[in-house]
Amino acid sequence: MDVSNENGLLQAAANRADVLAHERIVLYAGANLPSKAAQDAYATGLSAYPAMGPSFDKEQPETDLVSQLEVAVRSEICALFSSQWAEPRLPSCTIANMAVFHAFTKPGDLLLAPSADHGGHLSQRRGGTPDLAGLEVQDLPFDMERCRLDADATATLIRKTSPAMVMLGRSVMIKPDDLEPVVKAARQVGAKTVFDASHVSGLIAGGAFPNPLAIGVDVMTSSTYKTIAGRPHSIIAGRNREDGERLADFIDRKFLANYDAGKLPPFLVTLRETREGARTYAAKVCHNSRLLAQALRERGVEVLAPTEGEQFTHQILVPLAAHLSPLQVMKGLEKAGILVGTCRNPIKPGEHALRMGTQFITARGCNDTDLQKIAEKVNLALATF
Amino acid sequence: MDVSNENGLLQAAANRADVLAHERIVLYAGANLPSKAAQDAYATGLSAYPAMGPSFDKEQPETDLVSQLEVAVRSEICALFSSQWAEPRLPSCTIANMAVFHAFTKPGDLLLAPSADHGGHLSQRRGGTPDLAGLEVQDLPFDMERCRLDADATATLIRKTSPAMVMLGRSVMIKPDDLEPVVKAARQVGAKTVFDASHVSGLIAGGAFPNPLAIGVDVMTSSTYKTIAGRPHSIIAGRNREDGERLADFIDRKFLANYDAGKLPPFLVTLRETREGARTYAAKVCHNSRLLAQALRERGVEVLAPTEGEQFTHQILVPLAAHLSPLQVMKGLEKAGILVGTCRNPIKPGEHALRMGTQFITARGCNDTDLQKIAEKVNLALATF
Repeated sequence: MDVSNENGLLQAAANRADVLAHERIVLYAGANLPSKAAQDAYATGLSAYPAMGPSFDKEQPETDLVSQLEVAVRSEICALFSSQWAEPRLPSCTIANMAVFHAFTKPGDLLLAPSADHGGHLSQRRGGTPDLAGLEVQDLPFDMERCRLDADATATLIRKTSPAMVMLGRSVMIKPDDLEPVVKAARQVGAKTVFDASHVSGLIAGGAFPNPLAIGVDVMTSSTYKTIAGRPHSIIAGRNREDGERLADFIDRKFLANYDAGKLPPFLVTLRETREGARTYAAKVCHNSRLLAQALRERGVEVLAPTEGEQFTHQILVPLAAHLSPLQVMKGLEKAGILVGTCRNPIKPGEHALRMGTQFITARGCNDTDLQKIAEKVNLALATF
Repeated sequence: MDVSNENGLLQAAANRADVLAHERIVLYAGANLPSKAAQDAYATGLSAYPAMGPSFDKEQPETDLVSQLEVAVRSEICALFSSQWAEPRLPSCTIANMAVFHAFTKPGDLLLAPSADHGGHLSQRRGGTPDLAGLEVQDLPFDMERCRLDADATATLIRKTSPAMVMLGRSVMIKPDDLEPVVKAARQVGAKTVFDASHVSGLIAGGAFPNPLAIGVDVMTSSTYKTIAGRPHSIIAGRNREDGERLADFIDRKFLANYDAGKLPPFLVTLRETREGARTYAAKVCHNSRLLAQALRERGVEVLAPTEGEQFTHQILVPLAAHLSPLQVMKGLEKAGILVGTCRNPIKPGEHALRMGTQFITARGCNDTDLQKIAEKVNLALATF
């Protein structure tokens, strides 16, 4: 395909979803495709002019249809995550996290957040988006032995520092954290807890990962194109109605103005599909990552994954030898048609790993036999390094 | 149509663009629809996983197609506005303005910005988005007699207060401002100038409104669904390459993470259509607002519009008697199938006006005869108040 001119580029773009679905092994842990029904539901007429303000109390004329869709989407989100409120309008989880920081903290407040070393995302961590709200950020303690949040040390830190907010969840999460001691300590000092479920929200919806809201976390944020198979967007949901009102009020007064309301129909379709299919899908995703870990190990590839009896997510990690450039390995796999991400090795400071996820291939119908073939291809590609 | 259930809502959403195009008189000044070609160009495969970082230096595998499209879109923006750089990734102009505040100022800095009384948008003004960057905001002086920025008083204020940034452009703009004295003063004190061209960017592209970058403004921001007929998104463009690098670096480090790259192809199509058609379209839009103002006046409706010899934009204002509720008048017109916005009357403090724009009806092919009929319908609907 000639991509040296604009028409060639547009053609390549139009073909890209088919290429990913049929000609690549997409093991990138933050990837998915919306269904045809969700894609087709984009409604350009809803985006023709703004619909600013609360549902049914908007500044613009004839916006009740947008308001009705906002209500429907909020209702689907609340049903999926047993939340008391939901905010459906923000275009990405980074922007959602930014809104949450602004709405629930003030400049100078202390935020405890996951470190980049352990999978803290730029929208969560020290040096990233929290800086924009003027927050002081301190890293959360990590249990390298168990490759998860150090819950007890976190609880102690919360009691010692009395932060305004604790940001939980990470972009590298091979198993659930133990959130109960954290929530308990946060409540004691009056800290708001936020769980960024971008990676695992589809697993939560499917009952294959603990629901942070059920454990007592105040606010959950998420993107919508990882273990939920939608277009890029955000979900914000929470336990306390006052939090929802506070956030919506903040968004209306300072943060949003117009948004692309034509995305509400595809969002609604995706959430409905998630409600109907998440249980089966999430179980299959976790089954597939367990199998992929096993199949890779059988071929001599080192894998960082949950131990016997622990809950898998969609993610497993392949630690890289210290002398390898993660970017080079990623590019090498790309040449073999295998798309993976890289991350810091959360249990070996200074080293890196490949981060693989099974959510994309599972959505394409990958079965146990396919998985063995995928493991073999990954093994062969890795063997060249 | 039964919108009491989700399927009915989805059907109504799918029909909404046709309803607007054929069954409504859309005079809302911030409204438009993308072409069929632009709509169809959305490429879900580009949004399947993130493409974080600078073009061709991204964190994720196989992202060169996204990078090529970023380059193509930037190149179209630079061609349209004679800019030296462009940032194509942010989803709305409010978010674009937020990024600009963060990238070019620091908390505590002084921003001069248009007041809400004169059309200052929440993303520009005191009490709105600038607060999120910790800015002190002071209102820009307004020339009520000429219904435009008071350029001389602004220049004096700039020299007196040495602000870090001056935010220009408003959501109510019936004619161009005189920016030269403002730019000159801003340069003397080292203030960054930003022009929010959300309303007039299509007129600028069509040569029917002065290009702020050509006058010396540093950065131009815009939305893309008003006088540019695209999907909701943002444009940021500027004169100095270092500004572009600084903004992109900020966006990559703290602000964006993933974005919906599948919107790049429709954006490219819209920008190309704008390049090809903006001159004719912008001239027709301004012709139509001149005619609409005249046709309404001939029917006894008071209109706030440019005087003889002055340049029209897509906007004219219909001042409302002090005893009328702008919301009620808007709803009344809505019942007659006429969609307009409301604003504060910029030349009568405490009073309001209807804000009407001709960019939507012009894109639907509205001719002089159609305009007379529209004026008559507006007149009849207004006569009921």
